[in-house]
Amino acid sequence: MKILVMNCGSSSLKYQLLDMDNGKVLAKGLAERIGINNSFLTHQVEGKDKIKIQKDMKNHKEAIQIVLETLADKEMGILKDMKEIDAVGHRVVHGGEFFTDSVLIDEEVIKKLEACIDLAPLHNPANIEGIKACQQIMPGVPMAAVFDTAFHQTMPDYAYIYPIPYEYYEKYKIRRYGFHGTSHKYVSLRAAEILNRPIEELKIITCHLGNGSSIAAIKGGKSIDTSMGFTPLEGLAMGTRSGNVDPSIITFLMEKEGLTAEEIIEIFNKKSGVYGISGISSDFRDLENAAFNEGNKRAMLALKVFAYRVKKTIGSYAAVMGGVDVIVFTAGIGENGPEIREFILEDLEFLGVKLDKEKNKVRGKEEIISTQDSKVKVMVIPTNEEYMIAKDTEKLVKGLK
Amino acid sequence: MKILVMNCGSSSLKYQLLDMDNGKVLAKGLAERIGINNSFLTHQVEGKDKIKIQKDMKNHKEAIQIVLETLADKEMGILKDMKEIDAVGHRVVHGGEFFTDSVLIDEEVIKKLEACIDLAPLHNPANIEGIKACQQIMPGVPMAAVFDTAFHQTMPDYAYIYPIPYEYYEKYKIRRYGFHGTSHKYVSLRAAEILNRPIEELKIITCHLGNGSSIAAIKGGKSIDTSMGFTPLEGLAMGTRSGNVDPSIITFLMEKEGLTAEEIIEIFNKKSGVYGISGISSDFRDLENAAFNEGNKRAMLALKVFAYRVKKTIGSYAAVMGGVDVIVFTAGIGENGPEIREFILEDLEFLGVKLDKEKNKVRGKEEIISTQDSKVKVMVIPTNEEYMIAKDTEKLVKGLK
Repeated sequence: MKILVMNCGSSSLKYQLLDMDNGKVLAKGLAERIGINNSFLTHQVEGKDKIKIQKDMKNHKEAIQIVLETLADKEMGILKDMKEIDAVGHRVVHGGEFFTDSVLIDEEVIKKLEACIDLAPLHNPANIEGIKACQQIMPGVPMAAVFDTAFHQTMPDYAYIYPIPYEYYEKYKIRRYGFHGTSHKYVSLRAAEILNRPIEELKIITCHLGNGSSIAAIKGGKSIDTSMGFTPLEGLAMGTRSGNVDPSIITFLMEKEGLTAEEIIEIFNKKSGVYGISGISSDFRDLENAAFNEGNKRAMLALKVFAYRVKKTIGSYAAVMGGVDVIVFTAGIGENGPEIREFILEDLEFLGVKLDKEKNKVRGKEEIISTQDSKVKVMVIPTNEEYMIAKDTEKLVKGLK
Repeated sequence: MKILVMNCGSSSLKYQLLDMDNGKVLAKGLAERIGINNSFLTHQVEGKDKIKIQKDMKNHKEAIQIVLETLADKEMGILKDMKEIDAVGHRVVHGGEFFTDSVLIDEEVIKKLEACIDLAPLHNPANIEGIKACQQIMPGVPMAAVFDTAFHQTMPDYAYIYPIPYEYYEKYKIRRYGFHGTSHKYVSLRAAEILNRPIEELKIITCHLGNGSSIAAIKGGKSIDTSMGFTPLEGLAMGTRSGNVDPSIITFLMEKEGLTAEEIIEIFNKKSGVYGISGISSDFRDLENAAFNEGNKRAMLALKVFAYRVKKTIGSYAAVMGGVDVIVFTAGIGENGPEIREFILEDLEFLGVKLDKEKNKVRGKEEIISTQDSKVKVMVIPTNEEYMIAKDTEKLVKGLK
């Protein structure tokens, strides 16, 4: 079964074509500047060179048309006919309280996605547009929606309800949702597989540390807490996002700096996090270089604040699960940041964590980085959201037949 | 040495007269509605009945005058002459980054307190007014300022710097300060005393749970982290305060409900917390009654959210200290809430916590509530901020002589 995985942003479209019979990626690519000028597609068939195609893409429908033509092109493609695509898996950011799992898309589902627009005003409209465009171009091909939020819908109410007037939950559905669900689910399942233990028996803390970062507490395979909340701004310090701050700071700064609500939240989303502290960069490679090679104190401070908040979250999740068996690091920094991982794990011996500093040098591949006798297994597992989306889609489509 | 401890609010004045030779409270009281109409004083000499005195108090100076007259009154008082007061200890809310410990008050100190008004616009002006009034009425009597923030000034930078643009720290001193410092200091010292162990060797988590709540991580006698931050709004869910929320919620609600910055922060301070969730009360006795006796689900949810967030904070502080030796509960709920304490400590066996359910029934007095073989000692210790203020004042004044 060949599955096309689609991730539509407001002006972009990321895709991957997977052959589920062997789990391999056949081709992947990214369309950029959709609906703007100078739009282009970067496309790569597995094992071949990356190619760049300049082409006008006025909207997602045109972009998808071009992606499909490219996939079925004699020279640039990998398919004889676009009809070889058996199903499409769409990444959807927000499923609100409607979706606790991936789902086959029908009219009812689209209505619910539209009802969630208020919760993800930047993302859900693009996701919906991508789905509708696909349906027009590929009529009859089954499609699934795989949500960033669904995996966290198992959180208990005392973890997701905010201590604010309850009417705001009833009226606007303001609650903690959590994001990166597909990634947390994938790496937790993979951890159990690698350790050859039933996930039902494991207490796993998954640290998805990238430009956006979140951590999840996964008990018996179910997410019981996660650090992002109503939006992806909550929780850890991130590349440019503040994460948790004293709520008073928002209104204090609005008043002192004469900022509107929109302006202050833009600052907390785009100019904060490690970028805000360091004043240099949101890229951890830049920060590490500045901190370790140039002695830049604010870059070092940014790294420490980041690691400290991850460490605190790990401690709090151990507390809510009554301990921890496995800690997983994934995504850009999680997979490629040995120094940061060491910062984070320092002082966690009391939890049963013993880091193997030699093994911790690993970057970007699966590895157990704790010592043989470490009670808690610490692992690096590269995330693979596309594979998880394709897997969920396959399962749903096979259930159809 | 007789010390008068003063705590001036915007329209109130709380006082306690202590005899430091035996640590006993000689008298205490509260002046209310200062500067409003119908102001009155409630006064009690230790071992005698409480009396209520209706008297016009236009400002703090008048209120202090009346307090001193009452203390030296033949019938209602305890002193022959107000000159028996050797020193005054003033509680001051915010010492900014100026004060890392209690200090004798001089002109320079008052200037610094004035420089901190922006950080505590409701509290510091009243504190300063109280100090100045005392200086006028009791010239030559040494006075000390004891800060809510000072004990937490030992926090490392990576614990107090927010992941927001660094210029806001430089320009407005926006950082984490922490509050309830006098209480956290008192109960941590007391815990070490009771356990007869040097505080330098201990990792203590102090849970000050009252209408306002905060937790501190105290390593070797020094606060290295605490849950309140720039203001007392950050951190735990409280009686009416939200504590940590996704910062986006503030601006989302401003837009949806058409609220100003001032209005939304008022809601997050006064109508949130367990009151906001339950819709019933900010008083835990009311919530426990509703939850346990009337089956009120939202009251139960409020209690669970509260306890859950305390549990998470305990876990995170164990992580930053590399373990924990002692957990202390203090203040209204901490001292008097066995059910809440049990909620909080559930699942913490992995940290070495074993609760003795029988001993945990204690209310309002010093008790070790963990089992004999519990690795972590869990204690109830009634807080005594006034004693701590008097103790610091005595130490400073004796240093004078």
